[in-house]
Order: sequence, then C-alpha cells, then structure tokens
Amino acid sequence: MSGRFITLEGGEGVGKSTQIRALAAALAAYGIEVVATREPGGSAGAEAIRTLLMEGADDRWDARSEALLFAAARADHVARTIRPALERGAWVICDRFVDSTRAYQGGGGGITDADIMALHGFGSQGLLPDRTFLLTVSANEAARRLSARDADGADRMGSKPADYQARLAARFVDMAASEPDRWRVIDADAPADTVTATILAELAGWLP
Amino acid sequence: MSGRFITLEGGEGVGKSTQIRALAAALAAYGIEVVATREPGGSAGAEAIRTLLMEGADDRWDARSEALLFAAARADHVARTIRPALERGAWVICDRFVDSTRAYQGGGGGITDADIMALHGFGSQGLLPDRTFLLTVSANEAARRLSARDADGADRMGSKPADYQARLAARFVDMAASEPDRWRVIDADAPADTVTATILAELAGWLP
Repeated sequence: MSGRFITLEGGEGVGKSTQIRALAAALAAYGIEVVATREPGGSAGAEAIRTLLMEGADDRWDARSEALLFAAARADHVARTIRPALERGAWVICDRFVDSTRAYQGGGGGITDADIMALHGFGSQGLLPDRTFLLTVSANEAARRLSARDADGADRMGSKPADYQARLAARFVDMAASEPDRWRVIDADAPADTVTATILAELAGWLP
Repeated sequence: MSGRFITLEGGEGVGKSTQIRALAAALAAYGIEVVATREPGGSAGAEAIRTLLMEGADDRWDARSEALLFAAARADHVARTIRPALERGAWVICDRFVDSTRAYQGGGGGITDADIMALHGFGSQGLLPDRTFLLTVSANEAARRLSARDADGADRMGSKPADYQARLAARFVDMAASEPDRWRVIDADAPADTVTATILAELAGWLP
C-alpha cells in the first residue's frame, strides 16, 4: 500500500465531519487523491449493515451480535473501499474506525478490547490507520454542541447522557495515550480553521 | 438448560423442512413444547441479517464479511430464541446451524473451520446441538430433487453445480464421522415417513 490511512475519532459533536471535508479539500489541493469515508458504512454492503445497526430499539441487538455486525461492516468497508484506495496510492480519511468500536462497545456487555481486536483481526486483517486524530472538546462545549444537535433527533448510537459521554471521552484519551505513535490529540474547542491547520501541520511530513 | 437442542443438516433438497414439520408434530404428541426454527434467521434480528445474506449478487459479500454476518445472525438467534426456549424446557429443532456454516463457508475464501468455531465461541458461547441428524441422499436422488426445485428459482446460497453439491456432502459426512456422539447419519432416500420414524427412534431415550 502506498496511500495513507487517516482516521478521526471522538465523541459526538466534536466536529469530525467538518474537519474531514476541510482536510479532503486541503489534501486535494496538493494533488492527492482523497477518499473521504465513514463508519459504520463506507461501502454498499457496510451501508446496508449500518441501517441494521442504527435503526430500531436500543435493545434491538445484544452486545455480541452488535460487535459481529460492526466487524462485518468494517470487513466489507476495508475490502471494498479502503484497501483498494490505499493500493492505488489514494489517501483515505475515515470518520470513525475500529477505535470507535473499542470506545463505544468495548467493556460494555462483556465485550473486551481483546474480543474486538480479534474480530478485527479476522475480518480486516487487523488493519490500523497510519495516523488517528482524537478530537477533544471540553465538557461544557460538548454539552452545548449536543443540545444543538438534539433538535435533529438521534439514532441508536447517539445522544446518551453526559456522564456516558464523559466516560467515552476518557476511553478515547486512554487509547491515545497507550499508542502515542499512531494517535494525535487535537483540541477541538478551537475554531474549525485552527483545528484543520493543526491537523495539516501534523501531516506535513507526508505531503508531496 | 433442560430442553433438547436438535439440528438437521445436509445439502439442498434432502428433506430437512419436511422432517422438521413431522418431528415437531410427533414430539408435540408427547406433550413436549417444540420450537421449530431455521438458519440463517429464527429471530427478528437474524431474519433481517438473513435478507442481507440471501439477496443480491453472488459476490455481494467477501468471505470474511459473510462469515461475520452468519455469526451475528446466529448469536441473535441463540440469544433471543434458542437459549430462552431451552431454559424453559422446550425442545428446539433447527433447520441448519453452525455445521452448515462450516460445510458451506469453511475452507472457501481462506476461512478455516477454526475461524468459524472461534466466531461461534464469541457470538454464541460455542453452543452445540445435543443431537445433529445429517440427512443424506444418493447423487441421483439429489440431482432429481434439485432439478424439481430449480423451477422455483434460487437464492445466493442455493443451486450450485453437482460437483459442488458432492464436495459439500463429503464435508458433512466428514464432520459427522469426526464427532460420532453428536451426529447421526440418516438415509434420506427412504420415504419421508420412514425417515421420521428413524429419527424418532434415535430420540427415544430422551422421550417422556
């Protein structure tokens, strides 16, 4: 593979999709082919699985079925979208990847981090990003952004209470600390343009 | 668990669904609560996954995504239908279970039997039937029944060439030979009534 695989992670409302749009435009200006994608989803099969995961009642899936469905969607996304893009030299920028499954599902319902990584090893040959940016916001800013989003309604994965969001944010910070070569933690309380510039500066060594 | 978990396995057209109907009626006559079910499917979530697995082009899923989807459907079926039934003392009679995944998917596309059993261990705590009946038919009879069914069309899983059906039948026979305590091989060239009587005779020790 000659491309670069970059993921953005973090809780709801930290600005991942805004940053992905901005990064895709900035990288394209360097003549790089950019594939901007997201999880769950990002390929035809994975989008069909996404519908099963996001719709229906909170208890529609038990934790093990849910973990297997996430792994199936990711396997399809990797096989059909991410690996082919990387192999032709494109940069893939993905909104959430296996780290979101680790943060959201790992530890809940008896699912361990080792379980999730074993499923990822089987389904996606353990593919990991070259660089993962964790976007963090202060608790006050997270609450403000989430209440602004609540007007749009929520799916099965979103809009849990503030203490849940705080535990989730802590799990992301722990993962970033345990693998510092891959992760960069970005202060996303800053204005969106500043966040984009910070991320691009981190990628400068890989730019043509 | 106090109920009994019984599965029927074999290629297409060996008469599994006919036998399940007959067995359910015969066991009910003994005052046993019978849950007759099938895979993929057998619970609301698993039926939704079944739709993803059975519809679409032959190459809709790569082998790893497909194995994960089967494991997710089975985990839901076990958690929502099979275990609750067994725990209240019902007998569960299931048309296909993990052995069908082993026969159809194992060995193809780089998926090993160990991979399939590892996914089954994670999703369904490795639940295995108390008794598995392998229904076998001669090659001539299989060809006759399949050509009679082809008029009804076929899904992604069905209606492969005769040499494929022969390899599949051989894999089932190998599995049965390797675990003789669990499996019984039944000659399904015999009339349906005879097959039902043979299966019931095998279950006689468990009947009230």
